[in-house]
Amino acid sequence: MLDQIHLLAAVTVLGVMEQAYFFLQVIYARRAFGISPPKISGPPEFERIFRAQVNSSEYFPIFLAILWQAGLFFHQGVAAALGLFYLCARYCYFMGYKTSASERLAPIYFSAGVLWILVTVSALGVSHFFLSHYMGLNILQLLTA
Amino acid sequence: MLDQIHLLAAVTVLGVMEQAYFFLQVIYARRAFGISPPKISGPPEFERIFRAQVNSSEYFPIFLAILWQAGLFFHQGVAAALGLFYLCARYCYFMGYKTSASERLAPIYFSAGVLWILVTVSALGVSHFFLSHYMGLNILQLLTA
Amino acid sequence: MLDQIHLLAAVTVLGVMEQAYFFLQVIYARRAFGISPPKISGPPEFERIFRAQVNSSEYFPIFLAILWQAGLFFHQGVAAALGLFYLCARYCYFMGYKTSASERLAPIYFSAGVLWILVTVSALGVSHFFLSHYMGLNILQLLTA
Repeated sequence: MLDQIHLLAAVTVLGVMEQAYFFLQVIYARRAFGISPPKISGPPEFERIFRAQVNSSEYFPIFLAILWQAGLFFHQGVAAALGLFYLCARYCYFMGYKTSASERLAPIYFSAGVLWILVTVSALGVSHFFLSHYMGLNILQLLTA
Repeated sequence: MLDQIHLLAAVTVLGVMEQAYFFLQVIYARRAFGISPPKISGPPEFERIFRAQVNSSEYFPIFLAILWQAGLFFHQGVAAALGLFYLCARYCYFMGYKTSASERLAPIYFSAGVLWILVTVSALGVSHFFLSHYMGLNILQLLTA
Repeated sequence: MLDQIHLLAAVTVLGVMEQAYFFLQVIYARRAFGISPPKISGPPEFERIFRAQVNSSEYFPIFLAILWQAGLFFHQGVAAALGLFYLCARYCYFMGYKTSASERLAPIYFSAGVLWILVTVSALGVSHFFLSHYMGLNILQLLTA
């Protein structure tokens, strides 16, 4: 059973490490700008780093949920590869946003594109399972027949 | 194995799509009210949409975690049906909050009720598994004997 | 299959209940200080409770993701025990933060330590699986040979 999820697990662990890195960046920024919790407002440099972390945290559970459905119902290798692209895009997003608000745009569009592909392949994989499970239809066989 | 989780997977994919819809609503509201990131404050109309998305994002991992435990340890069909109710309630919550702060109340109470049912059936399912696994007790058999 | 995840499921359900408790605390604080949504700023007493809940929510999906990888690829009992430590530390964090910003520090450091242990054992477990699956290497056997 574990060989059906080990690539997804590896991407998940990498993703958690990336989130930890973003949290550390906010802690460093809080020290550098002298902004103690519970305050969350400050100079734009701080607010950009803070928002980059918040945005990444908000998307993380969505990313994991769709990564695992894509991996279980479509193809584990494809899902894990898309997952790695997403994690790279998130890193570029964070680093870009740290520099300026406009430099977050290209990587956020790229990461959104990867998420849409994951959503699409998940929906295809789950739909395919429903069709074959409840109606005995095998689309792949029909297409190649 | 996939036939034990396909309904949960379908609800998860639908939930991700709903979250994506909420994120898009915030992006449109940012454009409509001219509030560029990293700013998160503005007129009440914007702040309500923003808070509706943040609140939905905060609950999403809790919802998924409890949906899957309920589906695996209690009953997949019941959990998936409750999951659909939750997603509908979240949609009504978002649309209500967009209109006024008070219109978010009825659907948020309903969605909280659904979550408590999911928590309860998860706890029952996991407890039942513990009792039968470690103590050999089968409550359902005892009740019907 | 369920006996490989029942301890993880139990910790997950407990974690969801803890999150529900934190959400209720924010609702009570909103009433006590008269701060209606969508407002999120107010006296420091309110902001500390609010930030304690937001921070706990942000970490929750990360915690669950790494708990399950540690339980599936390293050892379910060890992961579940670490998970219980984490949930206790989060409770102390929330109660400490409610009192003063400095009293959140000891439990947050402890909870971060537990998360790092979970990340480490997950990475070890997944790496071990990769080595034995793709290269036929069994590190544990090599070490004891």
